[in-house]
Amino acid sequence: MRKHLIPLAALLAATPALPQASANIAAGRAQPSPLAPAEIVNVAPKGDWAAIAASDLLVMDLAPDAKGKARRVVIQLMPAPFSQGWIGNIRKLAAARFWDGTSINRVQDNYVVQWGDANAEDKAKAKALPGDLAVVPESDYEANFGYCKVGQECGPIPDEFAQGPNLPVISRINKQPDSFLVSTGFVRGWPVSLVVGSNLTVAPVHCYGMVGVGRDMPPNTGTGAELYTVIGHAPRHLDRNIALVGRVIEGIEHLSSLPRGTGALGFYETPQERTGIVSVRIGSEVSGLPAYEYLSTESESFARYADARANRRDAFFIRPAGGADVCNIPVPVRRVK
Amino acid sequence: MRKHLIPLAALLAATPALPQASANIAAGRAQPSPLAPAEIVNVAPKGDWAAIAASDLLVMDLAPDAKGKARRVVIQLMPAPFSQGWIGNIRKLAAARFWDGTSINRVQDNYVVQWGDANAEDKAKAKALPGDLAVVPESDYEANFGYCKVGQECGPIPDEFAQGPNLPVISRINKQPDSFLVSTGFVRGWPVSLVVGSNLTVAPVHCYGMVGVGRDMPPNTGTGAELYTVIGHAPRHLDRNIALVGRVIEGIEHLSSLPRGTGALGFYETPQERTGIVSVRIGSEVSGLPAYEYLSTESESFARYADARANRRDAFFIRPAGGADVCNIPVPVRRVK
Repeated sequence: MRKHLIPLAALLAATPALPQASANIAAGRAQPSPLAPAEIVNVAPKGDWAAIAASDLLVMDLAPDAKGKARRVVIQLMPAPFSQGWIGNIRKLAAARFWDGTSINRVQDNYVVQWGDANAEDKAKAKALPGDLAVVPESDYEANFGYCKVGQECGPIPDEFAQGPNLPVISRINKQPDSFLVSTGFVRGWPVSLVVGSNLTVAPVHCYGMVGVGRDMPPNTGTGAELYTVIGHAPRHLDRNIALVGRVIEGIEHLSSLPRGTGALGFYETPQERTGIVSVRIGSEVSGLPAYEYLSTESESFARYADARANRRDAFFIRPAGGADVCNIPVPVRRVK
Repeated sequence: MRKHLIPLAALLAATPALPQASANIAAGRAQPSPLAPAEIVNVAPKGDWAAIAASDLLVMDLAPDAKGKARRVVIQLMPAPFSQGWIGNIRKLAAARFWDGTSINRVQDNYVVQWGDANAEDKAKAKALPGDLAVVPESDYEANFGYCKVGQECGPIPDEFAQGPNLPVISRINKQPDSFLVSTGFVRGWPVSLVVGSNLTVAPVHCYGMVGVGRDMPPNTGTGAELYTVIGHAPRHLDRNIALVGRVIEGIEHLSSLPRGTGALGFYETPQERTGIVSVRIGSEVSGLPAYEYLSTESESFARYADARANRRDAFFIRPAGGADVCNIPVPVRRVK
């Protein structure tokens, strides 16, 4: 641990005044409509995009669909200092081929799709887990950013998070606490909630497409062998109660469009209803995988995009909202062109 | 119009202190876990439920699925004073059998499913609309509850909304403006945003499952012939920009699990991908339709339910959120037992 400054000014700053689409000044022609959020993303300069390492991807290939079409789901794992204990387990599980031959077992409408070993609760049939999985404490549901007071400098932050020029920048979108009584923003490309107490604690939030770790009753925190993704309105009551480890960046439609389970909590009632998982691999093990990048949440383009998401000024809209919740500002991710 | 009092006290009231599950006072036994939201709903007394008239339902039967199974979607239309111009059009369209033989044309992941006449943009092929559809003004995206100041009595409100003992009660859940810079609550069973200016204006919000009216560029407001429902995180930027007319109360899985369209905005690229609509009828025309009821948003049970949604105290949770957004408190609806 060493002392470092978190730029709390960023925490407190209002959304900057932002340039609109370049005005058409030719006489007699109407001003063009301000850019829509997707248009801002499309014109973002290359330097505003950040590469995602293949080693931070988890690639899940499902059994082909009824027409024989391949179904691949690509998940980006979270960076330090978030959830690294569970993510370490997930790397071991993928290396052990644990998920190969398991299945999608639960699809609950407006909530989650969940996958893993359908027989995990049956000791006689359950697949063996790798022996060296970490038991991660509940305290790791959030990351401790050190001692802070609003408007003052912060105290020590974890060494692994203070890496030379890559200082943690919190892109704060919402100035006031949201409906869940927390402040929200973005850290290194991820939506987070911020709680300033005796320490600043930061936790990822359950937006659409985020991937979390199924668990039993507390103090169990789950190993990472049972995963789920959000396919409905953000279930924010799960924040800081369950570990989040990543997000689906491609192929979520292969999960969100699956038939809903008719059992309790959306579990399938018969094995035949489950969708098989052929393999799950870390991206660096997958040949021919495209490269991906995300729009840096510290970039000017992201600030413009977030502002446009909160204040739609393109021609379809008659009334900008003036705000947006953190899950209404999905971080743009794309294949590298 | 006549003078009436809106109980603005309700607007300002904090969530009341609520009884937890009855404590087990037998010596030596642990306290039971407080009830989960669904358990509170299950034990709500009959008197806390409000009937939904069959004449306020819109019943859409899709073509059977690949296994020949029936697919019915039941929509509850909004009550006065919300969106009544479009809802009048929808009643005329259903009476004219306008939607019979049309289709689901658009499924955009984490956004909307949209249906209507796939040829509406092609004048040569478009189905004729009933001749007497109303053109509804943009001002009807919200309802005017009369002149108010916070903490004072309200001025005149529309006659149709001041019906004897059924006074408008606003069940306010969030005391502070939410991320979208509005206050939110519930009116007569519906999630709404509240804006207090020279008047109190109230508008329904785009929660999961809400049904809205597709439209062209403003000032077009749509007729109601093109409808959509939300199948993702609440797109609240559409509030007060598009008309909302109802919500899906049964069968949303027949829409949310459809294959996503691969064209722009999730439109299907070929007619073969569309799901056919066999018929759309007002509920009172459908024989054998179950009766439905919703948990009155003015009831004590709803207050307990909303509080439990915001503060999960059941055994799975280690940290209650302390709040919830209006779309995280879906109004319970069920078949009458």
